[in-house]
Amino acid sequence: MEITHAAVLGTGAWGTTFAKVLADAGLTVSMWGRSAGVVDFINSHENSTYLPGIDLPGSISATGDLGVALDGAQMVAVVVPVAAVRETVGRAAPLIEDDAVLLTLAKGLEPGSLTTVHEVAREASELPAGRIAVLSGPNLSREIAAENPTATVIACQDTEVATSIALACHNPYFRPYVSQDVLGCEIAGATKNVIAVAIGAAEGMGLGMNTRATLITRGLAEITRLGTTLGADPGTFSGLAGVGDLVATCSSKLSRNYSLGLRMGRGASLEEALALSPGVVEGVRSAKPVLDLARAHEVDMPITEAVVRVVHEGATIQEMGEMLLARPQKMDGWRIELL
Amino acid sequence: MEITHAAVLGTGAWGTTFAKVLADAGLTVSMWGRSAGVVDFINSHENSTYLPGIDLPGSISATGDLGVALDGAQMVAVVVPVAAVRETVGRAAPLIEDDAVLLTLAKGLEPGSLTTVHEVAREASELPAGRIAVLSGPNLSREIAAENPTATVIACQDTEVATSIALACHNPYFRPYVSQDVLGCEIAGATKNVIAVAIGAAEGMGLGMNTRATLITRGLAEITRLGTTLGADPGTFSGLAGVGDLVATCSSKLSRNYSLGLRMGRGASLEEALALSPGVVEGVRSAKPVLDLARAHEVDMPITEAVVRVVHEGATIQEMGEMLLARPQKMDGWRIELL
Repeated sequence: MEITHAAVLGTGAWGTTFAKVLADAGLTVSMWGRSAGVVDFINSHENSTYLPGIDLPGSISATGDLGVALDGAQMVAVVVPVAAVRETVGRAAPLIEDDAVLLTLAKGLEPGSLTTVHEVAREASELPAGRIAVLSGPNLSREIAAENPTATVIACQDTEVATSIALACHNPYFRPYVSQDVLGCEIAGATKNVIAVAIGAAEGMGLGMNTRATLITRGLAEITRLGTTLGADPGTFSGLAGVGDLVATCSSKLSRNYSLGLRMGRGASLEEALALSPGVVEGVRSAKPVLDLARAHEVDMPITEAVVRVVHEGATIQEMGEMLLARPQKMDGWRIELL
Repeated sequence: MEITHAAVLGTGAWGTTFAKVLADAGLTVSMWGRSAGVVDFINSHENSTYLPGIDLPGSISATGDLGVALDGAQMVAVVVPVAAVRETVGRAAPLIEDDAVLLTLAKGLEPGSLTTVHEVAREASELPAGRIAVLSGPNLSREIAAENPTATVIACQDTEVATSIALACHNPYFRPYVSQDVLGCEIAGATKNVIAVAIGAAEGMGLGMNTRATLITRGLAEITRLGTTLGADPGTFSGLAGVGDLVATCSSKLSRNYSLGLRMGRGASLEEALALSPGVVEGVRSAKPVLDLARAHEVDMPITEAVVRVVHEGATIQEMGEMLLARPQKMDGWRIELL
């Protein structure tokens, strides 16, 4: 299947960037969003609200009418916050073309249900799992919008679907690779935002690059533990959707999760740091669902636990630092035995 | 075996830092070095040449006499450049105490022989492999000297030996973990310096965090390919000695390898960048040996190859950038299939 026309649901920074990726790969793109103002901006070729300064190709249009956006779309990219995926996909489902495929780009677990985005989309759309793919990788939207080269992973049970989507979004600065490990990509994407909050905090506290690298490794280990317990391929966590995404997220002030931690490490309260964050900070929203999922499967996730203590139980960032440093007996690389 | 007295061969920044780690863990330490000036500095409690501004504990002494340094040492830490390991260990061997263990801290392959440091130490000392351990991890010496918390891996065939050494160097800011995968730790340590040169270059060229994370992931993949082909455990590369060390090395101007690449990415020639680097840049020395080893085993290492082209074949850093970006078909995460 060759995909030449796509719908993008969501007009935030990532949705707008992904629409540009598709347009630069040669597709025509219909975006859908709730805000009439943002829709108008996009139709005048710049999303001044969420992606200021980036010229959008003329092959992108936007609408507030879901039916118009979905009409003729062979692929439907869902780029709304995790908590809005169920409702958005549910509303879109009756309007999606026969044979169209879904691609989800949100990263996180649905609060309450602890369900991955792929599973939420499946339930809400009633499409078979093989027609829903996920995208995950080291993808800071602002850098992609600036056309800095990056790679990503398109995961789907059906490799042909993944390959069609990968071909559709492949352009000179955006290189997609395909995988069958949907669950691994989803767990990596859902958990890394939480780890990024902790690593930002350590960095804000001035602990240096060895500490940072140790925490990234330790974070990768706890993410991998959770993923493999749930049935994911451990190799996914060593790839672009795992270590790639984690390193990018933990390296850039363009990440809301990392920046929030950084501000708290430098002394801001959670409320102050949240007030300075534009949009949703998924790491804050996902921390408790991730920990609940880990506990339900008896997986130890000390870094996630420390973030939950700060976000939900009023612990200070200093207490979080102590929790992380005082629990090194829980730290292990992959197969590195404990002293 | 409880280790209470150690010798450290080498008085550079890393040797001096590791002597401090051991002293802060409660050991007495005899350092050995060639330079009478540096020996005198250390005996006055500051290595002003290689680690200025750091107070050294009184339990560290230094000498230019190898026999004096080794007398009574239950552990001998070898912290000289890779190219000097064979001669240093060969000279030390007859003077090493019965039952003493060796610990190597250099990272790289011996030029010419393409031999790992552990193997060089084994050949030069004629000790059994189980009495020689290696140390590897996210260990920027300057940050450890400042007592920023970090973790590391002590690998040895004999887990009891690894555990004894780990206990001997365990202090409040330095957390050792043990592993049996000596080869994996050595390959990770030898190759990551080469990758760091390339990542520094990409960063110097202003390519951003997604590119950086993509190259780190790709670098990890090529390191893992080489290591597993040689018989190492793939899990080692997801641990502190693998991704941990790679991320630390690629994140800090304290890394000579990363800094050299960064300078070249910003326009310096190899000669100019080398002239600005204090001490040995192992990534430059190891690039060709690593590539030769990979070729001998038919392992594809495109990033290492690009570094060799710059270091030995006069390619410019711009040509290196093109090589890295033009070869994405070779890029894969772990089990991520190629489009």
